[in-house]
Amino acid sequence: MKIINLDQIKEILDSINIIPTIEKGFVAYSNGDAVIPSVGELIFNNPPGDVHIKYGYIKSDDYYVIKIASGFYRNPELNLKSSNGMMLIFNQKTGVPLGILLDEGYLTDIRTAAAGAIAAKYLAPSTIQKIGILGTGIQARLQLLYLQQVTDCRNAMVWGRNIDKLKCFQSDMQEKGFSVSVTQVMEEITSNCNLIVTTTPATSPLLWGDQIQKGTHITAVGTDSAYKQELDSAIFKKADVIVADSIVQCIERGDIAHAIRDNVINKEKLVELGNILSGINRGRMSDEQITVADLTGVAVQDIAIAKLIYDNFDSFII
Amino acid sequence: MKIINLDQIKEILDSINIIPTIEKGFVAYSNGDAVIPSVGELIFNNPPGDVHIKYGYIKSDDYYVIKIASGFYRNPELNLKSSNGMMLIFNQKTGVPLGILLDEGYLTDIRTAAAGAIAAKYLAPSTIQKIGILGTGIQARLQLLYLQQVTDCRNAMVWGRNIDKLKCFQSDMQEKGFSVSVTQVMEEITSNCNLIVTTTPATSPLLWGDQIQKGTHITAVGTDSAYKQELDSAIFKKADVIVADSIVQCIERGDIAHAIRDNVINKEKLVELGNILSGINRGRMSDEQITVADLTGVAVQDIAIAKLIYDNFDSFII
Repeated sequence: MKIINLDQIKEILDSINIIPTIEKGFVAYSNGDAVIPSVGELIFNNPPGDVHIKYGYIKSDDYYVIKIASGFYRNPELNLKSSNGMMLIFNQKTGVPLGILLDEGYLTDIRTAAAGAIAAKYLAPSTIQKIGILGTGIQARLQLLYLQQVTDCRNAMVWGRNIDKLKCFQSDMQEKGFSVSVTQVMEEITSNCNLIVTTTPATSPLLWGDQIQKGTHITAVGTDSAYKQELDSAIFKKADVIVADSIVQCIERGDIAHAIRDNVINKEKLVELGNILSGINRGRMSDEQITVADLTGVAVQDIAIAKLIYDNFDSFII
Repeated sequence: MKIINLDQIKEILDSINIIPTIEKGFVAYSNGDAVIPSVGELIFNNPPGDVHIKYGYIKSDDYYVIKIASGFYRNPELNLKSSNGMMLIFNQKTGVPLGILLDEGYLTDIRTAAAGAIAAKYLAPSTIQKIGILGTGIQARLQLLYLQQVTDCRNAMVWGRNIDKLKCFQSDMQEKGFSVSVTQVMEEITSNCNLIVTTTPATSPLLWGDQIQKGTHITAVGTDSAYKQELDSAIFKKADVIVADSIVQCIERGDIAHAIRDNVINKEKLVELGNILSGINRGRMSDEQITVADLTGVAVQDIAIAKLIYDNFDSFII
């Protein structure tokens, strides 16, 4: 059995391209080729924390995968990261354990960033003038980094509430080759950026319908539960194409869920990301359209990234 | 983090007594001090296999535990055991992974045998003349071995359909210090043994109501799903005390479920093992009574045994 630690996982990630495998995962999911039971959950109150167990398999694959991911939000007081966990890989024909990926929650961040890049690749307008990022945390950085794989645009503007965190984001991302401006005024984002990625834990809308210009693509990744919200429901009314990573999940949680509850859109207006990748549904049809992708995170992404790390471990070790 | 393999787990088990900890687990479960969500499941068809994810925690504990256990029944054709899996231990306050127990399904067998010993300790008549075992597999052997911890009786009779397996069981257990006779006639079991343990995967009754003598205790561990059955429903009508490891689970699967569906007993007649251990409910009240314990397996046993192995690893390693 392969036991792979976080440093090794990061080295493997540096040497491979995960996007094609995650794309195949989304296609398998939308095709009905993936078996993804409902998420297992443990909730703790003192201190507050939650654990999610996501698991499943792609029918044509050799593996099944179980991911454990936890968030304990007072961990920083103990000098520990909030998130932790691991991914387990088993043989689908025998149940024999094959790999333990001690990723400490990192692969969840990475597969989420990769999904953002995939959404932009298929939905963003042909020329991206400037990338707008809402939020200054790990996911904000990873979204920008992974967009490098699908666009040549290296101009970004970041919005946040905390000026120190904005400056820190700016300096970190300039080191990575981006030209980054900072703002605390949302209209600067919406008037300058035609690709906007939201990565905050906001619980009320940050982006409003009347702010959104024609020819904008928005990828929303921050809203992954029913009580969070980043996008005003009116944005969905204005949008020409609305994409969900998982329709069944996005109508329960995510920004789409708010728009449906507000009766602004109905389920029939949604298309699934995997069906755009496979060509079953059409995505953006002109540079004038407004498109929105709501990404709430699907276990098929975990399955895809876990097997990629596992398969590449031997060649990496030499 | 501690990664503990099967050989190490077996050595630790040889040096500790697991029964008191598993008893405490049952008490915590029946007290409502354990959080045990419903079981996660993956089903495979080609080849047939199933995976169960059992998880949860005891509120006053330091840990939470996730168990993965699989059964792929054609594995022996590949010279692999049918069962496999692992147990994971995490810090309940931070989510930090603490231990990976690569038990290959073995700890599930052991905690099941320990539960059988606990049931016998509290429910068997004061003098056990002979122990009757139905079945000749791993669990049949472990049940007999673990009964050594709660009774001095070393006389056993084993019932099975295959004479070679009966002989093999007899010779193996005689080496362990038991005097073992074999039979293919169930009445020989019921007329000679006042402690009977059923460990088969039977799908129709093996033991019938009119066969059971006064002063008998039966522990049924083979029936863990709705379609299996070892005990005729009439046994439950005749029984003075009926004990379930988990009432909520036993009314869905296990021999009790058949008796309830057959309208022979109702839920009010059931008492929970943990409530007998804590003294909330009474068990056997005379040597004349007939008692039945139906053990379908509860995640709190997995939690208890996993933390015991984890806690004893360091002292074992020296």
